Amino acid sequence: MTLEALCDEGDIILVEGPTYFVFLSILQSRGIKARGVKLEHDGIDLSHLENVLTRLKKSGELSRVKALYLVTYFQNPTGATTSLAKKSATLKLLKQFERAAGHPIYLLEDAAYRELRFDHGEDVPTALTLPGAGRVIYTGTYSKPYAPGARVGFGILPEPVFTVVQRIKGNHDFGSANLLQQLLARALESGLYDKHVAKVRKNYARKARVMKLALAEHFPASVEIWESGGGLYFWARLPDGISAGVKSKVFQSALKADVLYVPGELCYADDPSRTKPDNEMRISFGSASEENIREGIKRLGAVLRKALAR
Amino acid sequence: MTLEALCDEGDIILVEGPTYFVFLSILQSRGIKARGVKLEHDGIDLSHLENVLTRLKKSGELSRVKALYLVTYFQNPTGATTSLAKKSATLKLLKQFERAAGHPIYLLEDAAYRELRFDHGEDVPTALTLPGAGRVIYTGTYSKPYAPGARVGFGILPEPVFTVVQRIKGNHDFGSANLLQQLLARALESGLYDKHVAKVRKNYARKARVMKLALAEHFPASVEIWESGGGLYFWARLPDGISAGVKSKVFQSALKADVLYVPGELCYADDPSRTKPDNEMRISFGSASEENIREGIKRLGAVLRKALAR
Repeated sequence: MTLEALCDEGDIILVEGPTYFVFLSILQSRGIKARGVKLEHDGIDLSHLENVLTRLKKSGELSRVKALYLVTYFQNPTGATTSLAKKSATLKLLKQFERAAGHPIYLLEDAAYRELRFDHGEDVPTALTLPGAGRVIYTGTYSKPYAPGARVGFGILPEPVFTVVQRIKGNHDFGSANLLQQLLARALESGLYDKHVAKVRKNYARKARVMKLALAEHFPASVEIWESGGGLYFWARLPDGISAGVKSKVFQSALKADVLYVPGELCYADDPSRTKPDNEMRISFGSASEENIREGIKRLGAVLRKALAR
Repeated sequence: MTLEALCDEGDIILVEGPTYFVFLSILQSRGIKARGVKLEHDGIDLSHLENVLTRLKKSGELSRVKALYLVTYFQNPTGATTSLAKKSATLKLLKQFERAAGHPIYLLEDAAYRELRFDHGEDVPTALTLPGAGRVIYTGTYSKPYAPGARVGFGILPEPVFTVVQRIKGNHDFGSANLLQQLLARALESGLYDKHVAKVRKNYARKARVMKLALAEHFPASVEIWESGGGLYFWARLPDGISAGVKSKVFQSALKADVLYVPGELCYADDPSRTKPDNEMRISFGSASEENIREGIKRLGAVLRKALAR
């Protein structure tokens, strides 16, 4: 709905590379172009963001840039969390390019996994707490931390985006399902929500530990693993030249062994200025049992050892 | 979602005059033009539909016409139900113009109020039962007859619209709220749904009788009332020259008396070839208590008597 409010066909949204692949599909369905900014363990590469913006300015495309989309907590697909310092520097950088753009450039902060933090580590404040919060569109959900079947979320939007999105929402659904909102409100009020989220966090933290041990045991040492302090995913990077893409031997062999991962290449924007890395994989421990996590990583490890031995 | 699948900006959707006003707002938000077809007690005026299509053909706009939207059961706002004969004739007529249009012209059958039939009267078969059903997009909902807070509906769509709408839905919500679908599925399986719908129908039938008696007692005889065999609405037409529009004395006086109706003019397309009637009103007995229905109609009747006496 925010994209419908901000963008015309042909507009540009900046995204992390890699980013949440469903978001790329939403952009594509609206004829919006995505441009990727390199992602590091603590958020986007700021000098790359500056390069991208500068290049777009030079090519005359800056007027089409409407927002930067970041999944700031335990990102899907990498598990990376954006530091507060990077959020702050990002807002400043976007602001610098607004004059040349001729309009606001928003920071769309998707905090879907924020509450799925494992025991260790502190919550990072949102971009809403920073100077420049007037350009922040923040979205949260109760689905991931509490009830995937309820699908209730929320947004915190600055004017004039708020009013426009509200109208668009009216035309999308003429109102959310009241029953679900009531259920969530009761759960939040009664403390049931917090209790359940604590349980869910423990569960995921345990599954993450199981997966970490299995990865250490079964994956070749040359595979780089991104570890996360929360969320649902590990991110693995194979040595250069070994493809894990949709058409790769690795992916096809994994499927034959009944193991599914998300090929990393699906998480990159179609970007004329960069080729997509195809040697990465998102590995999820969200819904699998501990036993299946162990067995799945064992099988995937065998596939990788074979590919690397070639 | 169907409109997103079928239409580009500037396309044309034919609608009943009057039609469901929220649908007009959806069209407007997508930059789609609406063209009205006169509505009679048993559905649209077929010769007017032919006139409208012929005129659009002559003006070279037929290629922009993508569908005709009909609320076929106990229509919002008039309560009118489209006869099977008119559905059949409508499908034939649309088919005749397809060659000149250069693409399919769909019949979008919104059956939201279908189950809210009072005791008397038979259910009319849908356009899906007719030859030409390959051009019918049928939508239903469980909200109106069963649970307004659940907001679960469904569509029956022909290919290739089905596949496209499915993709669009994925990009809108990435899946419906499973919990609500489960609730509805259990209610349907267990018979609870049918039991509750029967109760809801009786309730609305009783409220409709209460309103009908109140209208007979309090409304001036010169006001034409459309009576319905189901749904949630009466439709009232004041004598020519007496406005019931948003800015009218009648509407303002009604509001002052704490009575709200939907001004009929809101239910007509912005149509350069027709001026909107402003002497009509949708009166709902859906959520008001019997006592409030009696009192509301009494107050509205007083407002109308005063307006007519001038």
